[in-house]
Amino acid sequence: MAQTASAMQESGKWEVLKGWRDELYPIYGYGNRMGGRTLLASVERAASALFGIVTFGCHMSAYVRDGDKTKLWVPRRAKTKSTYPGMLDNTVAGGIATGELPSECVVREAAEEASLPEDIVRKHIRAVGTVTYLHIRDERAGGETGLLQPECQFVYDLDLTDAGDVELKPSDDEVEGFELMEIEKIKEAMGRGEFKPNCAVVLLDFFVRHGILTAENEKNYMAICSRLHRDLTLVAA
Amino acid sequence: MAQTASAMQESGKWEVLKGWRDELYPIYGYGNRMGGRTLLASVERAASALFGIVTFGCHMSAYVRDGDKTKLWVPRRAKTKSTYPGMLDNTVAGGIATGELPSECVVREAAEEASLPEDIVRKHIRAVGTVTYLHIRDERAGGETGLLQPECQFVYDLDLTDAGDVELKPSDDEVEGFELMEIEKIKEAMGRGEFKPNCAVVLLDFFVRHGILTAENEKNYMAICSRLHRDLTLVAA
Repeated sequence: MAQTASAMQESGKWEVLKGWRDELYPIYGYGNRMGGRTLLASVERAASALFGIVTFGCHMSAYVRDGDKTKLWVPRRAKTKSTYPGMLDNTVAGGIATGELPSECVVREAAEEASLPEDIVRKHIRAVGTVTYLHIRDERAGGETGLLQPECQFVYDLDLTDAGDVELKPSDDEVEGFELMEIEKIKEAMGRGEFKPNCAVVLLDFFVRHGILTAENEKNYMAICSRLHRDLTLVAA
Repeated sequence: MAQTASAMQESGKWEVLKGWRDELYPIYGYGNRMGGRTLLASVERAASALFGIVTFGCHMSAYVRDGDKTKLWVPRRAKTKSTYPGMLDNTVAGGIATGELPSECVVREAAEEASLPEDIVRKHIRAVGTVTYLHIRDERAGGETGLLQPECQFVYDLDLTDAGDVELKPSDDEVEGFELMEIEKIKEAMGRGEFKPNCAVVLLDFFVRHGILTAENEKNYMAICSRLHRDLTLVAA
């Protein structure tokens, strides 16, 4: 698999391989995908989209509650990024490489992307499920467009309400800055398509779990709830 | 539809219709199922299983947090009930009749089944999504066995941690009594098959959303997360 991807890169025929990451992504067999017991092979991260392989990531939403109001920490991606430049993002997100546990990945990314101290994250984090979906890559993702990519994101909440004064800030040049944003403002930005698409998916799941989106205020509630959790069995390796 | 069900009942050929409820269940068209805008017809509750119609209900888990520990209020069904007698249940659960909103159904059932005052429920309740699944009726459900029944449950959490001394107790003879049960004890009872099957499904969703079940401690985590939210499109009316 590694040799195939390398040879494909050398051929220069695949745009998406020009963004070679030198990171290995896992390919799991059916049945125990995240148990790590049936790892079939690994593949260069940039090549996973070409093979339609399910990729895994973690997304964390950091928020503070103020009475009935909830505010979320929302970063804006740097305009210089090759993928989805300038778009709004989830508080912390990252891809899970071969051998990494989701819960470790999210703690590492929280420090790298948002300068969040490890002890605060470990104290206030909560695993809250997965979202699973397929997306079709467009020009914002870089590389070939039209590739169908199945993804599984392990989702985490970080309730900072009782964590004292925690200020999120970028620790590298991937993020332009963070804003503590009210839900209404987030909804408006989502409506304008300002969020990276899979981050909007994770936010919808947040809205469902936090009673912001309900059967009474959203006519497609039931469809949204099930589509946030697509069964990827048929597309899994 | 109503006449068909009545005629079927009069024929005496259908066991499941001997439990006639005189409650109408909705049949929705595809696309706006819970928006209530494409209600196609209604059918007697007991007959819905015979036609494979998606039925809707609400399930609420009432709990108290004590540091890192969570305890859930668990009722035991009366031994005299015709369906699932003597089994453990969710704190509050009920079927949603034609014309009823999920959020109103759950408040009503909370008063009827657990003597929960309406103001406490309205203050501490949170809508947290749906679970959608198909189940095959066995002898515990009463009536014909082997019927395939698709169901959508609107799920609610009721966090009673800051609600003062709230004691849950039966207000009719459907419930034998309530116990404030530790998670470990609930898991053991689930393992022994003591819970009504769809209540175990709702509890799994609770465990996922509350970080009790994680990618690290459950090898089938990803499969569980998506299977709790089956797409019922193909089986919907």
